Order: sequence, then structure tokens, then C-alpha cells
Amino acid sequence: MNGTTTAEQDADNVIRILVATDNHLGYGEKDAVRGEDSFTAFEEILELAVSEDVDMILLGGDLFHDAVPSQNALHKCIELLRRYTFGDRPVSLEILSDQGQCFHNAVNQSVNYEDPNLNIAIPVFSIHGNHDDPSGFGRLSSLDLLSTSGLVNYFGRWTDLTQVEISPVLMRKGESQLALYGLSHIHDGRLARLIKDFKVKFNCPENVANGEDGNESKEEEDWFHLLVVHQNRADRGPKNYLPEDLLPSFLHLVIWGHEHDCRIEPEENAKKRFYVSQPGSSVPTSLSEGEAKKKHVGLLEIYKGKFKLKPLPLETVRPFVYESVVLADHADELGLVEGDASTKVFKFAQERVEAMIERAVAQHTGHPKQPTLPLIRLRLLYTDESCMFNAIRFGEMLSTRVANVQDVVQFSKVVKRTKTE
Amino acid sequence: MNGTTTAEQDADNVIRILVATDNHLGYGEKDAVRGEDSFTAFEEILELAVSEDVDMILLGGDLFHDAVPSQNALHKCIELLRRYTFGDRPVSLEILSDQGQCFHNAVNQSVNYEDPNLNIAIPVFSIHGNHDDPSGFGRLSSLDLLSTSGLVNYFGRWTDLTQVEISPVLMRKGESQLALYGLSHIHDGRLARLIKDFKVKFNCPENVANGEDGNESKEEEDWFHLLVVHQNRADRGPKNYLPEDLLPSFLHLVIWGHEHDCRIEPEENAKKRFYVSQPGSSVPTSLSEGEAKKKHVGLLEIYKGKFKLKPLPLETVRPFVYESVVLADHADELGLVEGDASTKVFKFAQERVEAMIERAVAQHTGHPKQPTLPLIRLRLLYTDESCMFNAIRFGEMLSTRVANVQDVVQFSKVVKRTKTE
Ligand SMILES: [Mn+2]
Ligand SMILES: [Mn+2]
Ligand SMILES: [Mn+2]
Ligand SMILES: [Mn+2]
Repeated sequence: MNGTTTAEQDADNVIRILVATDNHLGYGEKDAVRGEDSFTAFEEILELAVSEDVDMILLGGDLFHDAVPSQNALHKCIELLRRYTFGDRPVSLEILSDQGQCFHNAVNQSVNYEDPNLNIAIPVFSIHGNHDDPSGFGRLSSLDLLSTSGLVNYFGRWTDLTQVEISPVLMRKGESQLALYGLSHIHDGRLARLIKDFKVKFNCPENVANGEDGNESKEEEDWFHLLVVHQNRADRGPKNYLPEDLLPSFLHLVIWGHEHDCRIEPEENAKKRFYVSQPGSSVPTSLSEGEAKKKHVGLLEIYKGKFKLKPLPLETVRPFVYESVVLADHADELGLVEGDASTKVFKFAQERVEAMIERAVAQHTGHPKQPTLPLIRLRLLYTDESCMFNAIRFGEMLSTRVANVQDVVQFSKVVKRTKTE
Repeated sequence: MNGTTTAEQDADNVIRILVATDNHLGYGEKDAVRGEDSFTAFEEILELAVSEDVDMILLGGDLFHDAVPSQNALHKCIELLRRYTFGDRPVSLEILSDQGQCFHNAVNQSVNYEDPNLNIAIPVFSIHGNHDDPSGFGRLSSLDLLSTSGLVNYFGRWTDLTQVEISPVLMRKGESQLALYGLSHIHDGRLARLIKDFKVKFNCPENVANGEDGNESKEEEDWFHLLVVHQNRADRGPKNYLPEDLLPSFLHLVIWGHEHDCRIEPEENAKKRFYVSQPGSSVPTSLSEGEAKKKHVGLLEIYKGKFKLKPLPLETVRPFVYESVVLADHADELGLVEGDASTKVFKFAQERVEAMIERAVAQHTGHPKQPTLPLIRLRLLYTDESCMFNAIRFGEMLSTRVANVQDVVQFSKVVKRTKTE
């Protein structure tokens, strides 16, 4: 936010948003060791929202891991939201759009903090992801329950999958005006078809989307255009992701949910000139390389047409060290061609894992609620089965030292690609 | 409440309670015809609470039909509670007991209307029944979700099944003081054992339970002692029900949940001198004779040690006519001994059912939300299979005229008991 004076950017004019996504509440809830991890991280996020004194919390979908969350997961979520987001703090965001249209299944057809029967300190806004998709009898999302309870403002919910209209929630705080667009998860293939057929329409507060792409002067606009989506971002084959370039150029910032790797630092889309921030999940739901990246949420500050996004590291996330080793690269060093390769690789893995457990200590944050027993994943890429050993027994040796005893070592066969004409 | 003057019984001193039980929300929710019945009746009950301007709603368990209610059932329940029980109406009941002890899983450890972040007009108090028993991972009842959401005050929840202590919620309104005891459902056999072993203890506000049974002078007491239970009341074999006589005599009134027949008019227990009122369910969950009785909820008024219970008929309950016929009693009349008995019984059943459909019309209340397509159940008790016909096909003939096409006629074999030595 260079070029503006401090006076202009005072607290009355800057919209402050805690941005997070993919909390996957209830993930592994029955695991004796890891069962609380998803809730612990979510609680930290709510604590951050309180300590950063934000105007709202914005979630990018997959709040729950299961389409029908267990009563345990629902209960803990409700308890946390009641504890951290209710209270006397006045909310400074004035809603300018039709609230009856914006929020799905809200009682009284209003944003929760304008409901006269609830005392909301920090409103939560959320789209749904593929994990908290509307499902089952009644086609309800778990977010509908939270919406009706007054705990979450559920927006960006399409109602017609043959043509999707995205009407923003329009908000004002002092001199800043926010148009918040939400697109709850849609199957990527279907979304690609809808876009191709011009069946996805953004209802802008003004006529900003009329011109050709790139013709608008964002600097002069009155609105900050913020979109939250929950789709594949990485190219997973045609029609299997949402190409950034298909999104309209009048947007200023896209918060991208669904992808669990933390890439929260905003990246500019070269063609459309908006920025994309991908906060990533707050709990790893797979022991992959991307999930081992340091987890963050974001503090988004919006002043008129400008924004600043400050990554806030999560300090309660369980240490997780990931390594992938191509055994062929160590064949000579380990002498794999002669003798008992299995035993040699076993010993090699032991040393590696010891070093990884050591490295996990560096991820201790000192936060009293951080679980310190680490997740360790060593992926061994092999070409010859003779390198393999019993991974289950390997893990059992580490039963008191790692959180994922059952799957520390994962063998993956290297598939040699041969050129075809 | 004879013997007291009108002045004493003014609105400031009389505790007014809407009493209902066994709402079984979600019962048959996927049935295209009957799917809304449980919700419709529950909504009527909430409307009655509002129109009767009661101080609280007291539920006797089985609020939900399923231990893990569908998202649809939860959603509709939350929506109704938000709509009817929230608002600006001040609540006149002062809680005198330790609120942290009384209410299970309440955020802020308080009754919902003293939570500074909620605006409650009519508090709901509920125990759990066998249908909304704590279950699954985390041992949570669906009532825990409603408690944490601030929608229901969940009380009478035992935490130790080796010895049950029942501590009342103590409330005052002007000159009247209410000790509200709750005993959430316990397996009848277990409860019988606990009582036999003196492991069920009532923590009275005063030392009223010390003397011998019947020795206390209820007239002079300061407290009205009200108990809500959810157990078998009818004698279904030893250890398979809770005999009324096992309950302490200091009680004034017992609200009995679980039994679905409406026996709401208070009946005095001859031995213990308390009264028992059995409101019955608000939706029939079986097509039995008892469920065909007119459904009611109660308006309970308490003034000091006295009470009055006014039955309020439910007007949105679907008409239901039940008849049970012993075919042997009609053998001569129908000429069953000669010729085609099956056809004769079929014709007889047709005439009976026609008459029953006629009689169902008398149950139309004129309430705009009452579904009028009736439930019809004709039970035919036979001794000889030759009397039977295809009950499925019989129902199909009535497809547009009854709500339970699939099971209008039920055949039951009369088992002849022969004397044994
Ligand atoms: Mn996710
Ligand atoms: Mn997702
Ligand atoms: Mn019941
Ligand atoms: Mn029951």
C-alpha cells in the first residue's frame, strides 16, 4: 500500500480480514495421537482473528473434512465459533447488497451480525468446498447448519448448476468498499464447460466487467474485487482444473482454496493482472511434499483498490518432515547391486528417518498447544523389489517417536518411461 | 389451584411451562407424503409456546428420531428454534442453582438466556431420550449440539452410570420456586438395578427427602418438585420399566416421556401421592392404537406448591384412525366357513376402511398446516390363513386416499393359548 498516507489508512478505512482455508475439521478425529490436530489449528486461527482484531474471517471451503461431519466435529466447531466469534466487539463492515440474496439459509435473511438476537464480534464468511459439499437428503451442506445457527455467513452458494451467477456481498468500511465474490466448489469439468459456454456470470456492482479484458483502470474504481474459489488450481489435465486465465480481469485478488500447499504470498497473473493467494490447508490431510510446507493463514488489509497480505505462520501445527529419495541415486553408495539390498536400504532408511526426526525439532514453535510428536514421511522410489522391506515393522520401531507409526516409509515404484514413436 | 386468591396467582408469580415430549424430528423424513409431519407438529408446539406466552418449554426426550439426525432434521430443528425461541421477550425465571453444573455442554456454563451473546425469548429445557441418546465417537447427544449452539438447555444428563445423582435446576419466579429434576433415558434394566442398590440420589434443595415416604407436608414446602423422565412406564416385565412407586414421594409432578400414548391428564399415584402426566408423542412413529389417540401438549402452571395442567390439543397432527378386528368374531356374519374366505374378508376390509376414511374427516381441525390425507390402520386378527389377502395390493387401491398406502391392513395371527400343567 505504498503511495497512500498513514492518515488515509487509519483503522476506520482499512478492511482487515483473516484469510484461511481447508481446515478439514474432523480429519483423523478418531486417531488417538492426531485426533485433535484439525481443531487445534482452527482454534489458533480464531485466536489470531481475535488478537489481530480483524473485521471478518474469510474461509475458502473444506471447513469440515466430511460432507456429513460427525457430531464430535460439529460440536467442536460450534463450540469454537461460539467462544471466539461472539461478543460485544462492534463490527464495522456495513453490508450494502441485498442480504436476503447473499446468505444461504440464514435465519432472518441477514448477515449474522445484523441479526438482533445474536451478538457477533467477528463474523465468519465461508463458501463450501468439495468436502463440505451439499449432499444427502435435503441437499444440505454442513455450512447450512452453521448458517442457520447464526455461526457462519454462508455465501457464494450456487443454486442453479446450468448457469452460475456470482453476486458479490458488497461491504463498506469508511473509504473502502469491498465486493466479495464467492464460488463454492463445482466439479472442475462442469465448471470448465460452464465457462466455455459463457454460463458463468459475475454481477459486478458497477459496469466494470463490460470492456475487454484489461481495459479497466483498477486504480480509479470504487470497489475492491475479491473472489474466493475452491477448485483445482494446478493443471491436472484439461477440464480438471480452473485455469486462472478464465477468471475476469476486473478482480483484484483471488483467494484460492482446495489446494493444500501453502502458497499464500500473492502471485500476479501475468495476463489478467489480478493476484492469487493460496493459503493452503491448516492441517495436512495427506503426507505429501506440499503439505509439509510451513502452514500459514493471511492477514489481508484492503484500502480502497489496494491490498496487503501478511502471512501469519501457524504455530500449533504438528511438525512434519517429508523426504523423497530415489534409491537408484544411492545404489553405488549403498552397494545395492551386491548382497542383501533390503537390509541395506532398511539401514539407510533408519538413518534418514533419524535425521528427519532431528529436523522436526526445528519446527517446534514453543506454542503450548503445539503437538510435538512429528509426522515423518520417507518416500523411497525403487526400481527393483529387492530394495523393499517391511514398512509396517519399520514404523512399529518408532511407535513412541512419530505420530504416523503406520506409514512412515512409503515405497513407490519408479516407472521407466520409454520413448514411443 | 383452588384456595388461592387471584391476586396471589398473578402473572408475576405463576411459572408457565409448555410441556411436550417425543417430537421425533426426522421421523419418516424421506416419505414423500409424511416427511414433514414431525416438523409441522413441532412448529405448532413452538407457536403455542409463543401464543401462550410461557416462561419456558420443557421437553421430555426423543426430540430427534435418530441418534445421529440427518442434516435435514438438524437444520429444520435449528431453524425452528431460532425462529420461535429467540427474541426480545424478557425471561422471568431466575436460576438459583449452579448453572455450570446444570447444563451439559453449554458454552459459558450458563442457561442460554443468561448468555450475553444470545437473545432468548423462550428458553427450551430438555433431557435426552433413548432416540437422542449420546452415541458414537465422542459420546455426544444431538442435544449437545443444540446446547453448544445455545438453542436448548440440556439438563438431567447423567455422567456416571454406576451412581446417578439428580441435581435439580432451581428456578424462581416471584413467589414460586421450582426444583426441576431431569433423568435422561437410562436402559430400564440398568435403572432398576441402580434404584434397587440405592444408587440413584435426588439432591433436593432442602432436606425434604429425609423423612419416611409420605411424611413430608408438601403444602408447607417452599419448592415445587418437578421431575422429567424418559422410561417405560407401562409394565413390560420386571426390570423392563420404571415403576412409579420407586420415585420419591417429595415430588409433586412427574412428566413422563417415552410413552407415545397421550395420557396427559395428571394421574395421582396412590402410594406416593405425586401426579404423573404423560403427554405422549407429537407424531405417531408406529401405527398402533395408542398413537391414534388425540395428541396434546400441556400448559403447566405452577404457583408455589400447586399446579394446574391444561391439555392443549395439537391441530396439525395428521388424522389417524386405527381399528383392530378379530375375524373369528365375524365368522358367521361373513360366512367364512364356506366358500372363498379371502374374498369375503377382502370385501369386509374394504367396507371397514371406507368407514375409517370417513371417520378420519372428523379429525380435520381446520388448521391450515394440518395434512389431511389420513393414516388408516386396520388390524385383522385371523386364525386361519384362508382369510388372508394381498395387503400390498389392497393398499395400492387407496393410493390417493391414505397416507400409508403400503401398510393399511395388517394381519396378525391369533395365537391360541392352551392350558399347560
Ligand atoms: Mn481441502
Ligand atoms: Mn477441497
Ligand atoms: Mn419416543
Ligand atoms: Mn423414547
